[in-house]
Amino acid sequence: MTCRVRFLPDDVEVEVERGETILRAAERAGVYVNSICGGEGLCGKCRVIVKEGDVRSRPTALLSREEIRKGYCLACLTEVLSDLVVEVPVESRLEGRPVLVGEEAVRFGRISPKLVPYKHDPLSKKVFLELPPPSLEDNLSDLDRIYRGLAGKGYSYPVMQTGLFNLKRLARLLRESDWKVTVTLGRRGGTVELVQFEPGDTSGDNYGVAVDIGTTTIAAHLVDLNTGRTLGTQARYNSQIKYGEDVISRIIYADNEEDGLAKLHGSVVKDINDLIGALVEEADVHLHDVTYLMCAGNTTMIHFLLEMDPSNIRREPYIPTANSVPVIRAAEVGIAINGRGLLGCVPGVGSYVGGDITAGILASGMHRREELSLYIDMGTNGEVVLGNKDWLICCSASAGPAFEGGGIRCGMRATEGAIEKMVITEDGRAIWKVIGKGKPRGICGSGLIDAVAEMLKAGVINRSGKIERDGRWNVREGEDGYEVVLVPAEETGTGRDIVITEADLATFIRSKGAIYAAANTLMSHLGFSFEDLDTVYISGGFGNYLDVQNAILIGLLPDLPPGKFKFIGNGSITGAEMCLLSEEALGEVEELARKMTYFELSTDPKFMDEFSLALFLPHTNLEKFPSAVALLERRR
Amino acid sequence: MTCRVRFLPDDVEVEVERGETILRAAERAGVYVNSICGGEGLCGKCRVIVKEGDVRSRPTALLSREEIRKGYCLACLTEVLSDLVVEVPVESRLEGRPVLVGEEAVRFGRISPKLVPYKHDPLSKKVFLELPPPSLEDNLSDLDRIYRGLAGKGYSYPVMQTGLFNLKRLARLLRESDWKVTVTLGRRGGTVELVQFEPGDTSGDNYGVAVDIGTTTIAAHLVDLNTGRTLGTQARYNSQIKYGEDVISRIIYADNEEDGLAKLHGSVVKDINDLIGALVEEADVHLHDVTYLMCAGNTTMIHFLLEMDPSNIRREPYIPTANSVPVIRAAEVGIAINGRGLLGCVPGVGSYVGGDITAGILASGMHRREELSLYIDMGTNGEVVLGNKDWLICCSASAGPAFEGGGIRCGMRATEGAIEKMVITEDGRAIWKVIGKGKPRGICGSGLIDAVAEMLKAGVINRSGKIERDGRWNVREGEDGYEVVLVPAEETGTGRDIVITEADLATFIRSKGAIYAAANTLMSHLGFSFEDLDTVYISGGFGNYLDVQNAILIGLLPDLPPGKFKFIGNGSITGAEMCLLSEEALGEVEELARKMTYFELSTDPKFMDEFSLALFLPHTNLEKFPSAVALLERRR
Repeated sequence: MTCRVRFLPDDVEVEVERGETILRAAERAGVYVNSICGGEGLCGKCRVIVKEGDVRSRPTALLSREEIRKGYCLACLTEVLSDLVVEVPVESRLEGRPVLVGEEAVRFGRISPKLVPYKHDPLSKKVFLELPPPSLEDNLSDLDRIYRGLAGKGYSYPVMQTGLFNLKRLARLLRESDWKVTVTLGRRGGTVELVQFEPGDTSGDNYGVAVDIGTTTIAAHLVDLNTGRTLGTQARYNSQIKYGEDVISRIIYADNEEDGLAKLHGSVVKDINDLIGALVEEADVHLHDVTYLMCAGNTTMIHFLLEMDPSNIRREPYIPTANSVPVIRAAEVGIAINGRGLLGCVPGVGSYVGGDITAGILASGMHRREELSLYIDMGTNGEVVLGNKDWLICCSASAGPAFEGGGIRCGMRATEGAIEKMVITEDGRAIWKVIGKGKPRGICGSGLIDAVAEMLKAGVINRSGKIERDGRWNVREGEDGYEVVLVPAEETGTGRDIVITEADLATFIRSKGAIYAAANTLMSHLGFSFEDLDTVYISGGFGNYLDVQNAILIGLLPDLPPGKFKFIGNGSITGAEMCLLSEEALGEVEELARKMTYFELSTDPKFMDEFSLALFLPHTNLEKFPSAVALLERRR
Repeated sequence: MTCRVRFLPDDVEVEVERGETILRAAERAGVYVNSICGGEGLCGKCRVIVKEGDVRSRPTALLSREEIRKGYCLACLTEVLSDLVVEVPVESRLEGRPVLVGEEAVRFGRISPKLVPYKHDPLSKKVFLELPPPSLEDNLSDLDRIYRGLAGKGYSYPVMQTGLFNLKRLARLLRESDWKVTVTLGRRGGTVELVQFEPGDTSGDNYGVAVDIGTTTIAAHLVDLNTGRTLGTQARYNSQIKYGEDVISRIIYADNEEDGLAKLHGSVVKDINDLIGALVEEADVHLHDVTYLMCAGNTTMIHFLLEMDPSNIRREPYIPTANSVPVIRAAEVGIAINGRGLLGCVPGVGSYVGGDITAGILASGMHRREELSLYIDMGTNGEVVLGNKDWLICCSASAGPAFEGGGIRCGMRATEGAIEKMVITEDGRAIWKVIGKGKPRGICGSGLIDAVAEMLKAGVINRSGKIERDGRWNVREGEDGYEVVLVPAEETGTGRDIVITEADLATFIRSKGAIYAAANTLMSHLGFSFEDLDTVYISGGFGNYLDVQNAILIGLLPDLPPGKFKFIGNGSITGAEMCLLSEEALGEVEELARKMTYFELSTDPKFMDEFSLALFLPHTNLEKFPSAVALLERRR
């Protein structure tokens, strides 16, 4: 028996088998419903309201009695028994357009200054040739004439290749264009391919796209390959989120669901095509003139992009199919640029250290410096790289989605309506800054760091992350235990209080503890302490709002002078763009990927100890955080 | 209006539009009818007999009144006006099976000794790897594990690549095969491709096919790439003959007919597939285990194979699309070997000096010798190469199809029923040897050389190629002028006299004159005389029967001691096989192709002079042929 499910406010209807979950129905209908745990009933994010019809819900502690009475249920735990009308409330929706524009596009896709200059030598070049027509005395073949023309302009490489597709058309093309043609040369591994031949001089129009495929956000830059100028930036959420919010749940989806891998693959391809479409439209560039796409992403994202089997990434001993993947024709995976255009990926190091990290290292330039530096990428996975020009070692710790709003009662991603900054004044008032113009709907990672730090300073919570039960501030006992009301319902965009619960605090402390412990374990594994660091590079969309003092205060970052921290923005896309524009940069990132060693934390007993010690604010061991201690003492 | 045309003796029927030619109808019906000129009414080979129905024939001088009365017409000049019954007489048919077997396969496909030994290092190698399963301590990616395994066995190359197809399947394949896999490595230009991964150890089964794509005959060898042994040989006529017997008429067909190029392409692909099918069946080898195909052919044949536009090959200044074509996947052009198997072509030098010649030079080894050598390939085009280890220069002259039976009244290819040897005894009796067991049906090139030489010695013809009108021997006046009856009708398989006409002699003398003049012009262009030659290599199916003394006597070959001539059989396929078995040999043929310069004869006034001088038997200038003169004087 099939049932019709109508989703509000989108007013989209879908037919599903009776017994299907509402979450699956929403997926089929193309309606976005938040879900972090991938449908396992653990995250409590897929809250929906059943307005009409019969359902059967499995019990959950993630909803209050009051909410259940109002018709709230978790979409993943609720089966459709009849035709339904289901409302997806604002807090469960992906607000706004899928493609971020304006301020957000700038935030996620923004152009960072390239810290290291490389020779301008793009991976795709268009060379205009005015060839002498053949004669009996000069009777080179058409292809050799092209090669001679290229060599005459200084374009000669040890291995040059071209495909049958081009050769079949070459004779006619040369003669119809009166021997004036433009050759597109594309770097393909250790070879250079004659990608296409065009009549006349089209060398002025040659574009590339750099893409950062993040687990949560995909950003893309359109680059003029002739000038190196960035012509536009776009970003959007990764639509794969509907299959699971972190890489592990998506790999499980790919493993267990029919056509799971194909769906994840199709999803990221569509996202990238949408971004490219928006970029070329905005810049008034022909898709045909986009000849190279350079992607950086974590290893799982690259597996999805190329539809490679990701299942062993999540199984010990965590082995990807490849860290360095071949350059392919973009059309092979369905990416719509020039039909012969190439697609390359920045090489990664291992299952949990991908090309996004090596690209970020390239962008930071730490691999060229004498001095010791630390690189921290703050995402759902926290990656940490330590090293200098002679060596690089990296590790990865599952920080969880807290910094992106996951696993936190009122958490949300850094999008419209999110509290991104917060201060609690000396007289006990909370002042917040919201992304966009509306009322607050929740709190994002940077806001959460501020909120926790401010509550700690104000004495609302203690160093264990427990809420002080002395009736101070807006503390109350909720269904989950004690909670702090940051914003009362009448001031929010959802009509619900924005609160932080003790459970939220515990989750958050585990996240920050994981990153700090990862960095600390890596340092001491190699016999260093944080004081030995010359610079700490911080990468991520996150990094743009991070209040370093607060991040130190809660023990997310080590207690070093603020001047030692450098925010490099989205290091992944900056590095990908540098590769696109310079073979030298690509060579360097390949070399640093080979050089970088991976240190597996999950099986290291020292990491578990460090992690336990880091589950306090800022840390169990206060000597490590003298400035934090001083600050807290000043406030008391 | 459509008409039905029934062809005898095949008893095949086809429907065609009224007004279509019988030749086109035969082509549609898949019935082979001889045609050298490609349907222009010039060669007179497409003789058919209309048994029933109405036709309209354009006038021709190529049929006798008697023949016209009997219903003979030229298929290319005759339009279908009603339903027809058409007989294809025996002299117009391609006798026997399309695939040559037994003696003929040996003749065309025979294994020649490799004159130069090269290191056994085939273009495709299968390497069995027993990989250590990954662990946390040894967590290379699947692909890097393969690379390490290959390097451990000594297989490491500067540029190694693999395709997405393989990567998508790699993770599962490695685990399901318990980390025991066989990798096929294929040389692809300057790179090595990981062509396929197979579970378990399949390294014992790795085969290649070498193919010589001749204008008239296609030969193929199946080679065990592990041992270098030739497992089988096959040959068949090039089915493209039905579109024209020489390269120029086929290029015209490709240019002028709808889908002409596609048809020529499909034809050669089908022929090669048929040969490969026969080879693997005979040797009990799986098609899947054939991983590399190495082709040698003249430049036009390679254009047809790859479906590259050949039209500029026949137009001054005679420019091919490419002399050195990329290695492709055989499946890209429809060749059925392993679906990932590769196809390479021996590089050529120019429009009229192809990879068949460079392969032949490789096989001869003349490019490695100090001494000066001449290489003569006797085909429809006569190619001549002069040089030594320091330099090579080649030229090409259109010899016409006389050596293959074309343009000669009773000429035929060296197939069943052809007179291949002939002697005229002192007492005036003709003794001949026929290929196969039947009665003679015509005369092939080697028989023609013998016949002309013997008639010259016997005084039946004079040095101008004119038939002596003194009533000697079996001389009579025919419709075309004087003719010599070699075999009277009652002794032939066709019921018609086998004759040689004065027109035939003129055609033949032009052919032999072209080859001699080409060789002589090339020699003197470089300041050499034939006496400077250490060795003359002769290549071609032709070469197997060539009577050197007779060839000298008529002035086809220079008058040198017979010991200086070396027959190397089919140099093209021998060279292709050498390349297949040795990267070193391929490297050498690439180098010699680059090194070889082309000397264009068609515009050289000296060649025309030399050609005129060579239009006598043996030559205008008798001092050049002292042994021939001595022999002729002895006979008188």
